[in-house]
Amino acid sequence: MGLCPAWARFWFPGLQAWGLRSVHEAAVQTPPLWLAERLGLFEELWAAQVKRSASAAQREGRAIQITLPEGQRVGAVAWSTTPYQLAQQISSTLADTAVAAEVNGEPYDLDRPLETDSDVRFLTFDSPEGKAVFWHSSTHVLGAAAEQLLGAVLCRGPSTEGGFYHDFFLGKERTVQGSELPVLERVCQDLAAAALPFRRLEASRDQLHQLFKDNPFKLHLIEEKVTGPTATVYGCGMLVDLCRGPHLRHTGQIGGLKLLTNSSSLWRSPGAPETLQRVSGISFPTAEGLQAWEEWRKEAELRDHRRIGKEQQLFFFNELSPGSCFFLPRGTRVYNALVDFIRAEYAHRGFSEVKTPTLFSTQLWEQSGHWEHYRDDMFVLKPPGSDRPASSLGDHCTSSQAHSTLALKPMNCPAHCLIFAHRPRSWRELPLRLADFGALHRAEASGSLGGLTRLRCFQQDDAHIFCAPEQLEAEIRDCLDFVRSVYAVLGFSCRLALSTRPADFLGESCLWDQAEQVLQQALEEFGEPWELNPGDGAFYGPKIDVHLQDALGRPHQCGTIQVDFQLPLRFNLQYRGHAGALERPVLIHRAVLGSVERMLGVLAESCGGKWPLWLSPFQVVVIPVGPEQEEYAREAQRSLQAAGLVGDLDADSGLTLSRRIRRAQLAHYNFQFVVGQQEQSSRTVNIRTRHNHRLGERSLAGAVGRLQELQSARVPNAEEVF
Amino acid sequence: MGLCPAWARFWFPGLQAWGLRSVHEAAVQTPPLWLAERLGLFEELWAAQVKRSASAAQREGRAIQITLPEGQRVGAVAWSTTPYQLAQQISSTLADTAVAAEVNGEPYDLDRPLETDSDVRFLTFDSPEGKAVFWHSSTHVLGAAAEQLLGAVLCRGPSTEGGFYHDFFLGKERTVQGSELPVLERVCQDLAAAALPFRRLEASRDQLHQLFKDNPFKLHLIEEKVTGPTATVYGCGMLVDLCRGPHLRHTGQIGGLKLLTNSSSLWRSPGAPETLQRVSGISFPTAEGLQAWEEWRKEAELRDHRRIGKEQQLFFFNELSPGSCFFLPRGTRVYNALVDFIRAEYAHRGFSEVKTPTLFSTQLWEQSGHWEHYRDDMFVLKPPGSDRPASSLGDHCTSSQAHSTLALKPMNCPAHCLIFAHRPRSWRELPLRLADFGALHRAEASGSLGGLTRLRCFQQDDAHIFCAPEQLEAEIRDCLDFVRSVYAVLGFSCRLALSTRPADFLGESCLWDQAEQVLQQALEEFGEPWELNPGDGAFYGPKIDVHLQDALGRPHQCGTIQVDFQLPLRFNLQYRGHAGALERPVLIHRAVLGSVERMLGVLAESCGGKWPLWLSPFQVVVIPVGPEQEEYAREAQRSLQAAGLVGDLDADSGLTLSRRIRRAQLAHYNFQFVVGQQEQSSRTVNIRTRHNHRLGERSLAGAVGRLQELQSARVPNAEEVF
Repeated sequence: MGLCPAWARFWFPGLQAWGLRSVHEAAVQTPPLWLAERLGLFEELWAAQVKRSASAAQREGRAIQITLPEGQRVGAVAWSTTPYQLAQQISSTLADTAVAAEVNGEPYDLDRPLETDSDVRFLTFDSPEGKAVFWHSSTHVLGAAAEQLLGAVLCRGPSTEGGFYHDFFLGKERTVQGSELPVLERVCQDLAAAALPFRRLEASRDQLHQLFKDNPFKLHLIEEKVTGPTATVYGCGMLVDLCRGPHLRHTGQIGGLKLLTNSSSLWRSPGAPETLQRVSGISFPTAEGLQAWEEWRKEAELRDHRRIGKEQQLFFFNELSPGSCFFLPRGTRVYNALVDFIRAEYAHRGFSEVKTPTLFSTQLWEQSGHWEHYRDDMFVLKPPGSDRPASSLGDHCTSSQAHSTLALKPMNCPAHCLIFAHRPRSWRELPLRLADFGALHRAEASGSLGGLTRLRCFQQDDAHIFCAPEQLEAEIRDCLDFVRSVYAVLGFSCRLALSTRPADFLGESCLWDQAEQVLQQALEEFGEPWELNPGDGAFYGPKIDVHLQDALGRPHQCGTIQVDFQLPLRFNLQYRGHAGALERPVLIHRAVLGSVERMLGVLAESCGGKWPLWLSPFQVVVIPVGPEQEEYAREAQRSLQAAGLVGDLDADSGLTLSRRIRRAQLAHYNFQFVVGQQEQSSRTVNIRTRHNHRLGERSLAGAVGRLQELQSARVPNAEEVF
Repeated sequence: MGLCPAWARFWFPGLQAWGLRSVHEAAVQTPPLWLAERLGLFEELWAAQVKRSASAAQREGRAIQITLPEGQRVGAVAWSTTPYQLAQQISSTLADTAVAAEVNGEPYDLDRPLETDSDVRFLTFDSPEGKAVFWHSSTHVLGAAAEQLLGAVLCRGPSTEGGFYHDFFLGKERTVQGSELPVLERVCQDLAAAALPFRRLEASRDQLHQLFKDNPFKLHLIEEKVTGPTATVYGCGMLVDLCRGPHLRHTGQIGGLKLLTNSSSLWRSPGAPETLQRVSGISFPTAEGLQAWEEWRKEAELRDHRRIGKEQQLFFFNELSPGSCFFLPRGTRVYNALVDFIRAEYAHRGFSEVKTPTLFSTQLWEQSGHWEHYRDDMFVLKPPGSDRPASSLGDHCTSSQAHSTLALKPMNCPAHCLIFAHRPRSWRELPLRLADFGALHRAEASGSLGGLTRLRCFQQDDAHIFCAPEQLEAEIRDCLDFVRSVYAVLGFSCRLALSTRPADFLGESCLWDQAEQVLQQALEEFGEPWELNPGDGAFYGPKIDVHLQDALGRPHQCGTIQVDFQLPLRFNLQYRGHAGALERPVLIHRAVLGSVERMLGVLAESCGGKWPLWLSPFQVVVIPVGPEQEEYAREAQRSLQAAGLVGDLDADSGLTLSRRIRRAQLAHYNFQFVVGQQEQSSRTVNIRTRHNHRLGERSLAGAVGRLQELQSARVPNAEEVF
């Protein structure tokens, strides 16, 4: 069985010329036997399918009715007309940009003949579903390149939220090097340029086993995933892969493709885990699309909060406290401004701040259930004196020591339950809304730590609402309103998702029914779009997750609103109801910013270091024109500082005025106060914004007062409305 | 050798009648032999001394010159005239109230004849030195009562800052019961009423050994303390005690005496430690003095911050987090107001707030020296995964784990050194003043915990100033000014003390000389009285301790200013100096409030729960006259809350208006806004203060605005200046 001549040019005989190694050194000049065998078998089966289709078309080729997206109805022929042909009828642009179809709600290849009366919709790259098809098709190209260039044994190749990756095996010793990516990428681009068609083949289990007899991963997937008598296989160039589809019509639709990272991943088969190689990439319909994305990515890198944190001297990390952040004066300023903002909202919204300890006996965590479920993520203390030799312990070391083991709190909720329970409560006190900025510690694996995104030590704008069941709906509505108004000030839009009871939920069904209904009702009244994640709730109650979208359109899960029926039970929380009987409160866990540290990182990236005035650690720099004005400049600086504003001074006489103005702009100072002879004598300042708009002369006192106003009002665009 | 008849009535034969046990049951009816022997020997020696004195008076009775306090000079006779006689010459009041004399700067019994020309000063109970003599004399009375009533073997009996105590031994099994104190007190009072003279005897070492042969404690003290050939012994009633003196003339000067507590203490002799019994008490020249003190104490108890904390719902404790405080909403408000106050001062005074982690590798503590000196007081974490069976650890458990042991920070200074060192520093950045409110944890023994006074978890208004040596003086001066102005706002006066190098100081003498001089200079310029504690500084540098005095006149050590030469060395801190060379900064540790928690407790007691407006968790209560005004009252409440003020509502229609006004007063609300028909229609409020002053009608908006002003200005008497 020889190679199909049409594909021969995609076998790369000159690997050594590329400076690459191969696990099958002997097979470098010709493709390995199994690959040729697999392709031969596929071609055989494909020819048979083409024949069957043709006869089916002849036999069952009746007229069918197709309903198009706009409601338009057109005629078609069963087993013959394809979605692609319909797209051509609508417009050539659509035919060119469609990546797949949806037929009666089911994903469908564009070249697959329709079989019956159908509703047909077209997917393009613009939709998330279209992107998924596009990127999944691209990973076939990557897989083919890896097989041919590196002799890879392919495993999985899915699309992701931002591209695709392919996992494959290169032998126990071999890894993919970063230096190999450009070559692999070049092969991918050649395969794309060849416009290889994706061919969909329906194969029986026997045929599947035959096709993939040399690939243990695929054999395992056949056992695990294939439930019916047949499954689909796609051919594309020399690649044949087990796959549900749909795919692009041909690889030529991929106008731009870039490989991004190489790493390793684990394949957890029932046998020993194998270390696989993972290469990830991204692709676009056009080269321009890829170019635009590359610019966006450069921007995102520039905005990386770790980079901004370093450049702006906001924070740093030190290995002596891994996973904890050191906030420098400027970062602390941003941090405190965020906390103050939430505190001000608390005053308006009837929340009461409390301060609870950091260390608690493990007894508390046993009662709350954290010890059982969360123990591995908690920092636990050594019993006191356990370092000292036993003889010196004296009678301090008693058997009660086991009970006094302390752990750092990973969450505030149990402490708030202790507050609720520390004296009898009445219905008059509900809803009781306890807020806490206490430091939380979680023993995250060191591999998962990164900048402010995941820390071992952080604070949340955490609050727990203890309310009567009949108050739940109003409270949820208020929580949603809280989120919306805070995010509006921060410049974020948000997406909401309701997660309902999981299979292993605890508690009574009727309570869950009621709570889910209440949440749904509140979401609907709230008026923003939301989605349902059935079964995705916590075991203790349903929840609403809030994803904000930053200035680059990236989603971040920050806020959360969770109903909890379990903790009130575990802590036996009760209040005296209207009628005098003891009743059980419902608990709502909620956070708006989520981790203050993480939100600070999100904000840094979203504003790209150009902080809005009220958060800014670079509010004003005072620039004296010459040394004669330095004393007056210092006075202006002191006025700013006394008003609670950041006032820096750039009196560096080694630099010209215009260089210092430029430097202030690059440092993103919201405002510059330039003071010369004229300003000094009239006690004014000459104001410029960071966009170099000249706002002209103002009295020093007036300017400081106006900045204070704008800061207290937390306006997002103080430079424009000054 | 029989009992001296004069003392016989002070032997209490009827112990059983008092319901008391004695360790020497057999000796109940008559005093034990050793006591009679000791007294007999004393009487013998005393008689001999009296004879010697008389012949000395005859032999050396020349005229001498005495200078009295006002500069007056009087004549006297050597070996005959006593200070008491001089006092009688001045005034009978002085003779009655003097407790001892100071002769040529040396403490002196009033009845001890003068020997040479002398400056004589009289001590009364009004001075600290006079109190010390008075209370030390009282502890002899307590010792005598304990010997006679309980058969105690006496150990030490010193005066303290607020009274006296006596430690004694009752045998290994026997302790003093609280129920025994009234009887012991009664015996003390009888001994006092008997006006037993204190008789001063000069005894040789042999005579001392003879007198105290039955008391191992005294024998040990003779070995340890007596350096010359003789030492003084005082007889008072049946008691004979080794003692430097001076004492009162007789026990009759003690007009009021009260025993306060019983506890145990340890005697650390070179042999095994013995558990001693400690009884403490207080005494006064008059019964009225004792009564006044008892009233003061009752007031102090009423003001006990734990009591106020509970009554006002400020905070509570829970055994699941021993030594940590749970701050309830009202307590958190006071807490945050204190922190905000200090933050505002920081903005004015050029301090930069930072936020540093809680957990640090023990490597950091080794570098800072805390691991060596402070390890036992630190909370140390279990290495991650040390709870799990070894087999499940896999390759996580490496030998590097020892290095990654984490401990909770007991202090912020090492973290601030890391901040200083995280990038190169220039002289232009100095002084760098880093402030931190981070939570500190110290493993205090559970016995020493008490309310907010001593906690395991607390926050300080901690700051570290890194400065050039030539900046030290100005910085110290600014620190003193910081302390004074904060304490003035809080209503405290303060006492300052300079502690200089201890014997085991580290570093160069010339640096110490310089620093001590700088501190002394700053203290002198500061203008407040200060005292010197030579040798009381830390090993790393000299310091100024600040004791504030609360409204009850009690001292509290809160603020501190410490110079540190060692940490900059240990962390190899450097900055590029003017001339371009690397130089070493000096570090100043300073705190004004000290522990915020502790200061909150001090403030609660000092104001007795009547908080000044700006700190108050009870600022305003709105009281509607009838249910018709409830809605308007709610509106007033919302206006207050929106302005960042505490606005509560008392719309309890079950209580009359006057009862609700009384309730508000008892709760110490700074202001009451009463709203009736009239106020509602004119949108005003009728204002009363917590002293029930009627301030009359004011517009709602005007009243809220005025309160905001008074709050921001942190005025101590908002009710008066409203």
